[in-house]
Amino acid sequence: MKEAIKKVSVIGTGVIGNGWIARFLAQGYDVTAFDPAEGAEERTRKAIDHAWTSLEKRGLAPDASKDRLTFKDDLAEAVADADYIQENVPEREELKKNVLNTIDQHAKPEDMIGSSTSGIMPSILQAGMKHPERFFVAHPFNPVYLLPLVEVIGGKKTNGAVIEMANKFFESIDMKPLVLHKEIDGHVADRLMEALWREALHLVNDGIATTEEVDNAIIYGAGLRWAQMGPFLTFHLAGGEQGMRHMLEQFGPALKLPWTKLEAPELTDELKERVIAGCESYSGDQSVAELEAKRNEFLVKLLDLVEEYWPESKQ
Amino acid sequence: MKEAIKKVSVIGTGVIGNGWIARFLAQGYDVTAFDPAEGAEERTRKAIDHAWTSLEKRGLAPDASKDRLTFKDDLAEAVADADYIQENVPEREELKKNVLNTIDQHAKPEDMIGSSTSGIMPSILQAGMKHPERFFVAHPFNPVYLLPLVEVIGGKKTNGAVIEMANKFFESIDMKPLVLHKEIDGHVADRLMEALWREALHLVNDGIATTEEVDNAIIYGAGLRWAQMGPFLTFHLAGGEQGMRHMLEQFGPALKLPWTKLEAPELTDELKERVIAGCESYSGDQSVAELEAKRNEFLVKLLDLVEEYWPESKQ
Repeated sequence: MKEAIKKVSVIGTGVIGNGWIARFLAQGYDVTAFDPAEGAEERTRKAIDHAWTSLEKRGLAPDASKDRLTFKDDLAEAVADADYIQENVPEREELKKNVLNTIDQHAKPEDMIGSSTSGIMPSILQAGMKHPERFFVAHPFNPVYLLPLVEVIGGKKTNGAVIEMANKFFESIDMKPLVLHKEIDGHVADRLMEALWREALHLVNDGIATTEEVDNAIIYGAGLRWAQMGPFLTFHLAGGEQGMRHMLEQFGPALKLPWTKLEAPELTDELKERVIAGCESYSGDQSVAELEAKRNEFLVKLLDLVEEYWPESKQ
Repeated sequence: MKEAIKKVSVIGTGVIGNGWIARFLAQGYDVTAFDPAEGAEERTRKAIDHAWTSLEKRGLAPDASKDRLTFKDDLAEAVADADYIQENVPEREELKKNVLNTIDQHAKPEDMIGSSTSGIMPSILQAGMKHPERFFVAHPFNPVYLLPLVEVIGGKKTNGAVIEMANKFFESIDMKPLVLHKEIDGHVADRLMEALWREALHLVNDGIATTEEVDNAIIYGAGLRWAQMGPFLTFHLAGGEQGMRHMLEQFGPALKLPWTKLEAPELTDELKERVIAGCESYSGDQSVAELEAKRNEFLVKLLDLVEEYWPESKQ
C-alpha cells in the first residue's frame, strides 16, 4: 500500500466530480480526469474557475494550480498513473460496476479507489473487482470543494488498513471523514436528509406550506443551530442542566404523537441510555451551560452573517 | 383592537418562557411574568442575565432594561394590564386550555394572546374562550432570544386582522414570523425536525451510527447549507442551470428507494410543478449561478466561524 498519495484521478466530471477536482487542485495535487461526454473538459475548467474564488479565500496549498489538471480521452489511461482514484459516474448500479471494474483492471493494484455513490452499498460495487480490498465508498456533499463531510464506508472485502489510510488522506485535504462501520442504503447523512425531504414534500403536497415557507421554517430555526450542533446535541442543550436525560423524559412521549409520517422507533431503556451516553461523551467536560454560552456566541456572529447572505437579500 | 403593544405578559417561565422574556426586555418592553413554581423568579432572572450578554452584542433597544421585568403571584393580576400575552405552560392539552381560559377571562378583551405550543392546534386551545378571535399559536425556537423563527397560526375562530397584527408585531421585535394557513399537529418546523429526529433515533437504535456520528453527519454537510438555504433551494442549486426541474427528473426516482423509514409521497406532475414554481419564484431574478456565488461567499465565512465554535473545539 502506498505511503503517500501524490496523483489523483477523477472519473466522471458532473457537479460532484468537478467539486472533487477543485478540492484536489486547491490542495496541491496533480489531477487526471476522464469523462466521455462532449464538452466535459470545457465545463470542468469553467466550474474550477468558479470554485477557485472561494478556494483562494479558504487558502490554497503553496503549489496549488488550476494548470495541474489534465484530461484524458481514455479511462484506462486516466487511471494508470494515479495513487488515488475517485469515481463519480451517474448513480446506476450496473454502470458504476462496469466503470469500477475497468478502473480496477487498469489501476496499479496498490492504489485506493473511492466511489461517490450516494446510495449503493460498497459490497455490491466491489463484488466484481480483482482487488476489492482497496475499494470503499467516499460520499461527499455539494459543494464538495467547500463542505467538509465525506462518508467513508468499506465493504465486506475492504481491508481495514485502507479505511484508515483513506481517513487520514481526507483529513489531510481539509475534510471531515465520517467512517461508518455498517453498510446501509443511503449511508447516514442522506437518510437523515431524505427523511426531512420526504416530510417537506408531504407538507407541500398536502397544501400545508409552500416550498418557500418550508425553507424558511428550516433556515430561521433549526438550520441556524444545525450549522454548529446536530440534532442530538441540540436536544441535549434544550434539556437544561440535566441535558438529554431530562429531554427524553419530557419529550420522549411525543414520539407517539402523529407528527410526521415517519414511524418512530420504540424508545427503549437501552436506546435512551445509548443516546444519553453519546451526548455526554461528546460534550466531554463541557457543561450544558458552557455549551450554551459557546452556542450563543456562535449564533450572534452567524446571525450577522446570514442577514448579509440570506437568499432573499439581493445586495 | 389595540394599535400598539406596550406591555407584555409571559405566563410560564421555563426555557421557552424565559427566552421570550429576554427578547421582549431587549426590545424595550415592560414585561410581567407569572409562574407558580417555587424559585421561578430567581431562575428567570439568572436566565435573563445569561441571555443578556448575547443580546447586548445583537443590539438592545434604547430603553431596554432587565429591571423592566416584574413577577406577579397571581395569574389574573399578571395579565390584567397587558397588551400582549404569551403562554408557555407545559405541553398538556387540559392544562393549557385551563390556563388560557383563565387568561381570557382576566385580560382586556382587545388584547392578543399567543401560545408557544409546539404541537397542539389553535382551534382546540381556543374552543373554551369567550374571546377566541384574539388567540393564535406563536411557536418559537430555542434559544427564543436569538433564533428569529416564530410560527403563527390562527384557529377556526381567529380574526384574520389579529394574525396580521401579530405578524407585524413579531417583525418589529426582530423575528421572522411564518404565518401558516392550515392547522396541523406539530405545525411545520417541528414536523420537519421530527422526521429527521426519528430517522436519527432509528440509525442509533439499529447500531448504524453513534449519536456523535449522526450529529457530525448533519453539521459538516447539510447543516452548513441549511443555515442559509432550506431543502428546496438547496436542491434547486444542486440541479445545475436548470435548477429544481432537472433535480426532480434526476433524483425523483430515488423516492422509490428504501432510504429512511418515511414513506414518500407520489411525485405527481402537480407536485413537481408546485415545487419547481416555488423555487423559481423564491429565487426571483437570481440565476442558479448567482445564488451559488452568494452561497459560496457565505460558506467561506461560515466555515471560519464554525471552526472557531464547533462543539469539539474547546478553546
